[in-house]
Amino acid sequence: MINAYAAKEAGGELSPYQYDPGKLQPREVEIEVMYCGLCHSDVSIIDDEWGMSDYPVVPGHEVVGRVGQVGEQVSHLQEGQLVGLGWHSAYCNHCHSCNSGNQNLCGEATFTIVGHHGGFADKVRAEAEAVIPIPDSIDPSKAGPLFCAGITVFNPLVQFDIKPNSQVGVIGIGGLGHLALQFLNAWGCEVTALTSSDSKRDEALELGAHHTINSRDEDAVGEAAGRFDVILSTVNAKLDWNLYLSTLKPQGRLHFVGATTDPLDINVFQLILGQRQVSGSPVGSPDTITQMLEFAARHKIEPQVEMFPMSKVNDAIAHLKKGDARYRVVLEAGK
Amino acid sequence: MINAYAAKEAGGELSPYQYDPGKLQPREVEIEVMYCGLCHSDVSIIDDEWGMSDYPVVPGHEVVGRVGQVGEQVSHLQEGQLVGLGWHSAYCNHCHSCNSGNQNLCGEATFTIVGHHGGFADKVRAEAEAVIPIPDSIDPSKAGPLFCAGITVFNPLVQFDIKPNSQVGVIGIGGLGHLALQFLNAWGCEVTALTSSDSKRDEALELGAHHTINSRDEDAVGEAAGRFDVILSTVNAKLDWNLYLSTLKPQGRLHFVGATTDPLDINVFQLILGQRQVSGSPVGSPDTITQMLEFAARHKIEPQVEMFPMSKVNDAIAHLKKGDARYRVVLEAGK
Repeated sequence: MINAYAAKEAGGELSPYQYDPGKLQPREVEIEVMYCGLCHSDVSIIDDEWGMSDYPVVPGHEVVGRVGQVGEQVSHLQEGQLVGLGWHSAYCNHCHSCNSGNQNLCGEATFTIVGHHGGFADKVRAEAEAVIPIPDSIDPSKAGPLFCAGITVFNPLVQFDIKPNSQVGVIGIGGLGHLALQFLNAWGCEVTALTSSDSKRDEALELGAHHTINSRDEDAVGEAAGRFDVILSTVNAKLDWNLYLSTLKPQGRLHFVGATTDPLDINVFQLILGQRQVSGSPVGSPDTITQMLEFAARHKIEPQVEMFPMSKVNDAIAHLKKGDARYRVVLEAGK
Repeated sequence: MINAYAAKEAGGELSPYQYDPGKLQPREVEIEVMYCGLCHSDVSIIDDEWGMSDYPVVPGHEVVGRVGQVGEQVSHLQEGQLVGLGWHSAYCNHCHSCNSGNQNLCGEATFTIVGHHGGFADKVRAEAEAVIPIPDSIDPSKAGPLFCAGITVFNPLVQFDIKPNSQVGVIGIGGLGHLALQFLNAWGCEVTALTSSDSKRDEALELGAHHTINSRDEDAVGEAAGRFDVILSTVNAKLDWNLYLSTLKPQGRLHFVGATTDPLDINVFQLILGQRQVSGSPVGSPDTITQMLEFAARHKIEPQVEMFPMSKVNDAIAHLKKGDARYRVVLEAGK
């Protein structure tokens, strides 16, 4: 049996929940959970904000643990190995996206916490290809958030070929943004943090930003006209996106990893005249996750985390919902 | 003196207009105009739709002619050579865009018909770098529209690295779209024309489309879910862009070369989940124009044109405004 925490209905508190995962399948791995990050998307699924939740929901898709059991067809993972599991716990492995190394875009992928039980538990299972070894030099207690927040901001660097000689702006310094600053600094970019929080602007400089701008000060943003090659938006607020487009150089990119439900209201002339692009991306593929972990290990990039015992998961969720997390919450299993 | 046709005020009819271009500058070229295409942007500038017109306006930025005079510092163009001139007649030649071969994105570029007199005239001048030799095998009477309509739809193939194994949709079969179908077919793509016109759907198949869809039939468009790598929109109408985004594959691109003044209303989840992109681009650089002309010559791509004597320019404009052009109007100089 697996001992988990589950929400039984939309918006419900999490409570202990036991389930029988059945016989381990040939390509499956069972992970003994050590730590699991808490992400805003866990809350969205608990609360059924996206209309796709399947109760009971066992959240948790920033899993770090050791391999417990491996299925009989799994040869590249060994019992006791330190591994992580993110948003996806299986892929179809036969579509164009999977075949081309873009498993993260597979339309048949299994979401770890939708129709599948996640990492707020003592154990979690996944298909072997979604279980990623973690380098020894990464602190397991801080590795969890790399598997969702980290890969979400690292993925565009690889996918959109962001160059070390680029000027990059990051809108929103939270769970995603505080990792984006670190990755972009190590990537060689000149980094500007855009945030409405005075205290976060100081912290942004320590995290790797070279400059800061108050994201709510339209004059200050306007002064950055023609400055950025790339802007990475991690916020879920509606901003004046045409103003931000004007801060891009010709051929610049406004890239979304955070989502607002408001439409983007883009002025097409802003795109045409400067040959600019607006894009978005989700988490990354297994290979990009591996690249990220190696890059993070080499550059000593890690999330700033606040630890909660997993038994206090409801307190942790309340803390996150209040906007108090600096910058990412991690639950410790067995406590 | 140069004998031209000019609008003296916003929305005015064109009438004969003489001006003295002064001494030829060292890097300038004077072109003796043979033909000049009529483009929707000529009408936009005549009517001051974009608030940037400078009267008297001499329109005409799809110029074909022979080199008359060359400035003393111009060594790569010879008197009598067949050349063309498009939207830009000079670049700053020292900004990042110019230095990196993206002169078309130069913020200081001179627009041929704004603060400069264009090709509805017996002669027109331009800086030598904006004057592009035309291959012998291209019919001069049909070359003009390549310098604006043609390069506008060819440019994204180069700039966004569109592959011959791509599925490409073209929205709008007019001056731009009828050239896009030809270029994309020759580029090796599988091409779908999306138009609201029944008669144009038949013509689209002759021009190079492999399939057609009624662009106003939302069910038919919806059936194309996940089909296209790239959609090129040449229209200035507001369509359901989120529906069109849903017809893109993961990593697909919705690219605008036609502009609506309505904001695009993009749903950011459509971008994030499929790692999709929305982009735009203007005309191309001198080098891309040269590549386009060579490609058009080799693949026998040419616009379908309707000829008017230049003295009947107001009739030609009326014909264009009525939406009757099939597909591009060309004025013949000296007639």
